[in-house]
Amino acid sequence: MPPEAFDRYRETLDTALKSLVPGSPEGLYGLLRYHLGWAGPDGEPTAGGSRGKALRPTLCFLVCEALSGEWSQVANQAATLELIHNFTLIHDDIQDHDLERRGRPTVWSIWGVEKGLWAGNVMRSLADRAMTLGSLPVPKTVRASELLTQAYLETMEGQYMDLEFETRAGIGTEDYIAMISRKTGALIRCAMEVGALVGTDDEDTVRILRDCGAHLGLAFQVRDDILGIWGDEAATGKATGNDIRRKKKSFPVVYGLANAAGSARRVLDAAYGASEVDEAQVADVLDVLATMGADREAQALVDEHSQQALAVLAREEAPISPWGRRQLEDLVQFLAYRDR
Amino acid sequence: MPPEAFDRYRETLDTALKSLVPGSPEGLYGLLRYHLGWAGPDGEPTAGGSRGKALRPTLCFLVCEALSGEWSQVANQAATLELIHNFTLIHDDIQDHDLERRGRPTVWSIWGVEKGLWAGNVMRSLADRAMTLGSLPVPKTVRASELLTQAYLETMEGQYMDLEFETRAGIGTEDYIAMISRKTGALIRCAMEVGALVGTDDEDTVRILRDCGAHLGLAFQVRDDILGIWGDEAATGKATGNDIRRKKKSFPVVYGLANAAGSARRVLDAAYGASEVDEAQVADVLDVLATMGADREAQALVDEHSQQALAVLAREEAPISPWGRRQLEDLVQFLAYRDR
Repeated sequence: MPPEAFDRYRETLDTALKSLVPGSPEGLYGLLRYHLGWAGPDGEPTAGGSRGKALRPTLCFLVCEALSGEWSQVANQAATLELIHNFTLIHDDIQDHDLERRGRPTVWSIWGVEKGLWAGNVMRSLADRAMTLGSLPVPKTVRASELLTQAYLETMEGQYMDLEFETRAGIGTEDYIAMISRKTGALIRCAMEVGALVGTDDEDTVRILRDCGAHLGLAFQVRDDILGIWGDEAATGKATGNDIRRKKKSFPVVYGLANAAGSARRVLDAAYGASEVDEAQVADVLDVLATMGADREAQALVDEHSQQALAVLAREEAPISPWGRRQLEDLVQFLAYRDR
Repeated sequence: MPPEAFDRYRETLDTALKSLVPGSPEGLYGLLRYHLGWAGPDGEPTAGGSRGKALRPTLCFLVCEALSGEWSQVANQAATLELIHNFTLIHDDIQDHDLERRGRPTVWSIWGVEKGLWAGNVMRSLADRAMTLGSLPVPKTVRASELLTQAYLETMEGQYMDLEFETRAGIGTEDYIAMISRKTGALIRCAMEVGALVGTDDEDTVRILRDCGAHLGLAFQVRDDILGIWGDEAATGKATGNDIRRKKKSFPVVYGLANAAGSARRVLDAAYGASEVDEAQVADVLDVLATMGADREAQALVDEHSQQALAVLAREEAPISPWGRRQLEDLVQFLAYRDR
């Protein structure tokens, strides 16, 4: 069962998002409304249900509430996080030629790469605009905008590194961590930092939540890597071995390439040295990684960063409410073992 | 001869840009440095010469100087305009499958669509970050950021409309103006508005420069449309009839489709109703448009908006220095008859 935090802020988030995305059912904004799960391809309203879990805004709201007892004051920043995340998904689907997202055809697969490109860019513009809305004191708005902008930049840098690693040999664990701390970590870290910035004036507390978010972001991505290889298709919507087919340098693969010997080494070198990986090679790579325990190693890394996230939170000096602390702990635990 | 304004601010702009774009010759930032004309594809520094004319920052600096006598205080905003413009060019080249830009291979044609996508997105992040740098008073920084963000959004909306118009029938002059006022007009308008905002505290003056920029933006794009069809390949780097091949609904075409009769009508309907335009059709469309005087009509529209830009500037209440007024007039005149 996902923790209640995922439902708790949904209404506030939806209200904020709907005030930020123009309502016209056709044309450009129809593509955005479709991607967000609010409308079908022809603009007809849908009953929802196809949206993501909204992890980043949920973290932002939860931290803000845990520190201040309220959350609505951070709604525009939380919505910004969701919009920017969705912008990266639209461009990511173009990059990976993905035909499905959340059980529905992707934007580019319906409207073409060119329109998908600008729809993504417009989603990002709406995020930029949302940052400065709301009634926060100007210095907090400016500081939150700087944090968000910096996190966007790191996200894009990480996307580029991820892509470049696909064709580069010799990627080690350090390279991998440098990549995911940007691609995924930056926005999750920023979600918690901005929630804290708005929820308290205490700089030390903001730093603690930022550190917690940085570890949570790493744990989240490594768990994602496990699901990207061994995830159940019914739960994730993606076939087993998907990331092997794409030659993604996800953690289990980085671990395998760094530690394989003998015949395992030959299987991996053949697959990752080839320009295309065929289905027989995918099966062989899956075998090799399982034999090497790459899944266990990956989960150990998830657990390590989840524990570090919790350890940071447990520091006595952090003035987080007991309720908030429990909610955050539940969320960290849930994410470490999620199956989708 | 281009007016001296194009050279006057080049050094300030280059210094600002070079402080904003990380210097690593390889990887992600190597793509950005290549696009900006500072480096070759392998990262080796180049002697410049392949950069654009930097119209938007030039307008921003010039307006600021014309109002305040100084220009360096607006350097980060001017650099933002140049970075965001270059981001749209990187994505535009992907959209149009263009192989050359400013006489060199485009980013995507060297590094692939996927890396080009993120390189463009990172260029945009650098622009976002630049907005809030510098030593302007916070309220001016915030206001300038809002204007820039709004202009980005309109630029993306216009790009989408331009794309959508390619396959939509019945585009009239009003639709066309609505599209170019976003795609090209918004950023040129914003360049002058932000230059004014930083150069003066007088709201009326800011509004005058904004209005001037809006007209100049329209004039600039319609002149661009003329060059996109009848431009000299040696000057523009693009073959005559280029925009006909792409079925762009540029002004001469919109004019032709709205006013053609008889055989001219049949030629245009055949070309713009077909999924692909062949070279014989390109030649026929060029003939028809020339016979109808679509080039003269387009230049009349350029002249009309150039005159309006100058008329707005000439309003007595605008406290622009005589030197600044003359510089702006020269620039408007030059742009109305430029051949590249």
